[in-house]
This record gives sequence, structure tokens and C-alpha cells, in this order.
Amino acid sequence: MKLTVLKEHLNEAIGHVSKAISSRTTIPILTGIKIEASAAGLTLTASDTDISIQSFIPIESGETVVVELYAKGSVVLPAKFFAEIIRKLPSDRIQIEVGEQFQTIIKAGSSEIQIMGLDPEEYPLLPQIEEDKIIRLPSDLLKTMIRQTSFAVSTNETTPILTGVQWTIEGGKLKFVACDRHRLATREVSIDVDPEMKFHNIVISGRTLNELNKILPEQNTLIDIVIADNQVLFKMHAILFYTRILDGTYPDTSKLIPQSYQSELVVNTKELADSIDRAYLLSREDKTNIVRMTMNEDESIEISSSSSELGKLTEQLKLHKLKGELLKISFNSKYMLDALKVMDSDFIHIGFTGAMQPIIMKPEENANLLQLILPYRTTG
Amino acid sequence: MKLTVLKEHLNEAIGHVSKAISSRTTIPILTGIKIEASAAGLTLTASDTDISIQSFIPIESGETVVVELYAKGSVVLPAKFFAEIIRKLPSDRIQIEVGEQFQTIIKAGSSEIQIMGLDPEEYPLLPQIEEDKIIRLPSDLLKTMIRQTSFAVSTNETTPILTGVQWTIEGGKLKFVACDRHRLATREVSIDVDPEMKFHNIVISGRTLNELNKILPEQNTLIDIVIADNQVLFKMHAILFYTRILDGTYPDTSKLIPQSYQSELVVNTKELADSIDRAYLLSREDKTNIVRMTMNEDESIEISSSSSELGKLTEQLKLHKLKGELLKISFNSKYMLDALKVMDSDFIHIGFTGAMQPIIMKPEENANLLQLILPYRTTG
Repeated sequence: MKLTVLKEHLNEAIGHVSKAISSRTTIPILTGIKIEASAAGLTLTASDTDISIQSFIPIESGETVVVELYAKGSVVLPAKFFAEIIRKLPSDRIQIEVGEQFQTIIKAGSSEIQIMGLDPEEYPLLPQIEEDKIIRLPSDLLKTMIRQTSFAVSTNETTPILTGVQWTIEGGKLKFVACDRHRLATREVSIDVDPEMKFHNIVISGRTLNELNKILPEQNTLIDIVIADNQVLFKMHAILFYTRILDGTYPDTSKLIPQSYQSELVVNTKELADSIDRAYLLSREDKTNIVRMTMNEDESIEISSSSSELGKLTEQLKLHKLKGELLKISFNSKYMLDALKVMDSDFIHIGFTGAMQPIIMKPEENANLLQLILPYRTTG
Repeated sequence: MKLTVLKEHLNEAIGHVSKAISSRTTIPILTGIKIEASAAGLTLTASDTDISIQSFIPIESGETVVVELYAKGSVVLPAKFFAEIIRKLPSDRIQIEVGEQFQTIIKAGSSEIQIMGLDPEEYPLLPQIEEDKIIRLPSDLLKTMIRQTSFAVSTNETTPILTGVQWTIEGGKLKFVACDRHRLATREVSIDVDPEMKFHNIVISGRTLNELNKILPEQNTLIDIVIADNQVLFKMHAILFYTRILDGTYPDTSKLIPQSYQSELVVNTKELADSIDRAYLLSREDKTNIVRMTMNEDESIEISSSSSELGKLTEQLKLHKLKGELLKISFNSKYMLDALKVMDSDFIHIGFTGAMQPIIMKPEENANLLQLILPYRTTG
């Protein structure tokens, strides 16, 4: 293998695939990035076995010659060092040449670096995926759906299935559900697929979705999502992102969500979030994060919290609407803040079915997003 | 004590004094900020016994009424919580009222917070300082001098005196020296004082100077520096910063610096720093940070490094000047990078008196700054 490549393009590709490099891998070859040079261009691959990312640098981009290819071939180079040295090289064009026993020479300006490469034949193959089940989503919508749900996955590895986000496709709708034992986040969207397409057990690690989110383009391009037996492949421009589907059956969460409410209120999202954020400062000192909400006759709520060390806080908040029974309810303020942060709506609707029942939050104008948190059982 | 104060001014004062709050203090009262309300304004004090910072909020600022005072008094409030809650309060003006047993009520908008305050009588008094020995420095010059020296102090607590920067005043000159066992940084400046003023053993903790640096204003105002027996007081607009002088005698470092060179070169600072930065990437893999410099006949140097794991790097660098014997010398690339970073000059002069002797770096046009690093003894 011998070629030159523009530093900027190589840097970008390394940046994308590096997100699949794990510092904790026990498989030596996976600490490296596989580089393959063909007549079409340069392909970089990295993997931690759960996630694999491939980035492609074409020979030409518009009028610009990006890659000058002198000899095809491939090599695996140590990811961390390769990423750092390429970023710091002094010239715009970098020469890479692989010699005997994968000894690789990188030249740029007057710099010459010899790296001991590894045999690309030892690098695991990427999964072969049949491209017959495809859904297509705009990049920004997919980013929003990930942001609105993935924070609610469980971080407890004893129930691995709950560390993932469940994707359901049915009746032309795609739904994300994330849930630990204290809260649930769900977001639904209509998609343009065969209404017969039906999936119930695609569960993708929340951490993986957060990594994907960093790579997904901000601008509104369409992403092809290929669903296979135990893999999902996200196809972006010049990037392929493979992820494993988690093993196990996701629990049925639909029964957790009440169909009618005993009390309902509508409140300004930012005012509520700011108020709970202040109450949180005291509640976290006792490590409980307990904040209490008390509904008043005059269409207001009182937010309060206390700390045995520091003192207490109370404040009043005017509501937009209040209907039903006046409740007192306590909850984890950190979970409430997480949910409020992703509402993307000036006003939210909160529904209650009693002081010991789930609290349901929705944007006032959008029934496709729902956040549930369980209240705390407190005395008095 | 009862008053209202503008949130913006209170926030700023808390931000300044908080730099003296240590999370590791074992003295409970020092986890708090002391607040004193007098007819002149509000004084905030924080201390970790090594550093004490006082910030003053005057009753009025120009046309603006900053503090409305209803009753004088004082209290100590928990620093971390007080800082966070004030920043998050919903209104521009905040009311603070201290009741019985230092119970403090903070009101802003509809928020009401009760904090358990502590008795200000228990708060340690600040040192009384005679203001007869004063030097005056522009803020930006003092910041530069700190930046150019404090990184070179020792982090080894077994020789506490070397964790400080030595200040020498003699013959109308102020000199900073910082030194661990492998490198030395020194910066000198002429100051407008009585030429009879003479100090040799003012040693101030490097960490303290870095904290001071964060508070020193960017704009070029004059700072009064009051020198007392075991304290130095820095007087800024509305802020007093007290620091302890370290106990012990600073070693005589003047003999470390050679008076003539066997070899000398002048090189572009950024080109050399970039080249050593690349070489550092390999050298740090073996945890040695060893980089080698070899002088060539053709007024160039070769920078090289290697790692048993990764491979090796060599590059050539054109010099501006080269004089004397052609040397090969090895050094800690991290120390060299630290020194190059503070040169503030396009070209630097480097002097050598042999492969095992100190390397001396100076900006080409400024003899007031000097950086010394000891070479590594390597074979071959």
C-alpha cells in the first residue's frame, strides 16, 4: 500500500471511526484502525465488537484530488497514536507507505514516522447485512428521538436489556421506549414504510445511541437504517455505523401508563425547571433529591425541599391550568429535571392519578412525546 | 443583618472569594463565606488559612443602588450552596435577612430559602498587615510573570520550599525563580521602588499564584503588593488577596546557570515546539518523554524519538543561526514544551555547554526571561 491523502479528509475520517475504539478492549487488534486502499478510495474501520464504524474517503471530492493512489493494500495502525500524530503533522498532504511486515512509514513535510502496523487479515470482518428491511429517517429527527429517550435507560448492568432503547415498528409508526425502574421516556413518529412492517424487539444500547448521535449530521439529511437479525446498520454519507441488537426480551411497559388522570395541570416548562433546579440544590445534599409539589386552590403550586444540613426552600409557581383533585406529591428532582430538559415546548401538561401513582408529562401541543416518573413515598 | 443586593454584584463577589474555599478543609467554619454588612457596603471573606480573599460590594456603583441596607450585622453561610443558589435565583435583587441563631432567610421573586448560618465570631481574623513595604506592578505584567515561572515549581511535597516561586527584590529589580530538580524558570523586571529595598526569601506557593492569576484583572491596572513578615497582600480594585509566605530558605540557584556556551542556536519557536510536540507523542508511550536533538553541519537540527511499542520519528528543522560545537543532546520533551510555550517570542536562543550540562533558553530579544532544563543521560 502506498498513497498520499489530504490531512483534513484523513483527520475527519479518523475522528468518525475513533468513536468505536474502546480503551478497555482485551483484543489487541481492536486498539487499531484498519486502513484499506482501493481504486475507489480509502476505507477506515474501527470496532469494539458492539459498535463498528466505517468511514470512506473517495479518490476525488469535486475538483480536489483527495487520494493519490500508488499501490493498493491494507494495514492496521494503533488508533490513538495514529489519530494524534496525523492531527499534528505539518503539511496538508500526507504520504503513507506500508512495507514488509506491515512496517508503515508516514511522511509529511520533513517529518518521517515509522509505525509498527498489524496484519489486516487478523481484523474481524464486519457483519454481512441483507438490505431488505430499511427505514429512512431525517438525521435531525433521529437525533431528537435519541436525546428525548436515551437518558432514561438503566445504568444497572444486572438487567442488560434495560440499558437499551426499545424500537417498535408497527402500523407505520416508529416508537422509542427507554425505562429504568423509576422512570420511562417514550417518543413516537410516523414513518413512510410498508404498514405491514412490524418489529417489537429491536433494543439498542443507550450508550451506542449516544455515540451515534455524535456522528449523525446536524443538517437535515436522510439516514437509511437497515434492520437485520441481530444488527442494525445506520448509513450516512460516507459513514457506516453498525450496532448489535441487545439479547433478551424488553418488558411490556404499556401498562405502566395511565389512561386517565385524577389531577391535571399545565405550566410554563422553563419556570418549572428553574424552580425545581433550585429545590434540587438542597435536596441533593441529603442524597435523596426529594422535592415536593403541593397544588393550591388558587391555580398555583408550591415547590419545596429541605436538607438537614443546610435548611429549606419554598416557592410558589402560577399555573396555566389546574383541574381535578389538589394533590401533594414528592419525586426525584433529578429525574424531573432530565425529563423537563427534553420537552422542547414552552408549556407542558402534567397528569396525576394519585400521590403514589406515576407522574405523566407531555408537551402541551405534542402527544408523541411522553415522560413518566414514579413518585417517592414520603411521610406527612 | 438585613439588606437587599443586586444579584450580579453579589455573584461576582462570591466568584472571587470562592477561590479561597478548599473542599478539603477540616475546619467547619472555613467551608463558609463570611458576609458583613456595614454602612459602606457588603464585605465577603473566604479563607483556607493559606489564602484569604476579601471582596467588597459598595452601597452604590455610579448611579446604581447596589445594596439597600436595613440593618448591619454579619453571618457565615455555606459557600458551595450559597454560590449555587444565588446564581440560580429568579430576580435581579436579592434580600438577605439574618434572624436568631444565624438562621438566614434569602428571598428573591417567589423563592424563599432558609439557611442555617454560622456564628461570624468563630471566623478567623485576617492578618493585620503594616502597609509600609509596597511594590506596584501592572496587572498584565504580574500575570505574565506568574505564567512564565509557576509551571516549573516542584509538585513534590517532601521539599515544600520548592513548591513555591521565590521573589527577590534588589537594586530596583524584581525577580521570580521557580525550580524543581530538573528545570528552572526565571523572569526579571525593573520596578519603581526605593533601590535600597531588598528581599531574598519571599516564597509564595505556585498553586496560590495560579489562583491569584485567575482573579487578577486582564486590563492593565496597577496592583499594590504589600510585603509583611510572613504574609503578602495583593490589593486589587475591591478585592484583597492575602497569602502566606512559605517557611524555609530557598536554595541558591544562581550557580546553576552557565555564563558562557559551547554551542548556541537560534530557531523559530513555533516550528521547534510543533516538532517536539510530535516527537513527544512517541516518547510518552515509554513514559520517558525522551527526545533527542542532533545538530548538523548544514545549520539544521534533527529531532527524533522512539517507542518500543509504536515505532520512531525523525524530522529536520532549519535553524536561523548555529555556532560552536555540533552536539547530540537528549531531554524531557514535556519540560521543553512547557518552557517553549511561555517564550512569547518568534525566535529563541538556546545555549549548551555540553551534552550533560543544562540547556538554557531565552527569547531572542529579551534577556529578562530564562528557562533551564537538565538533559537526560542516554547511551549511544
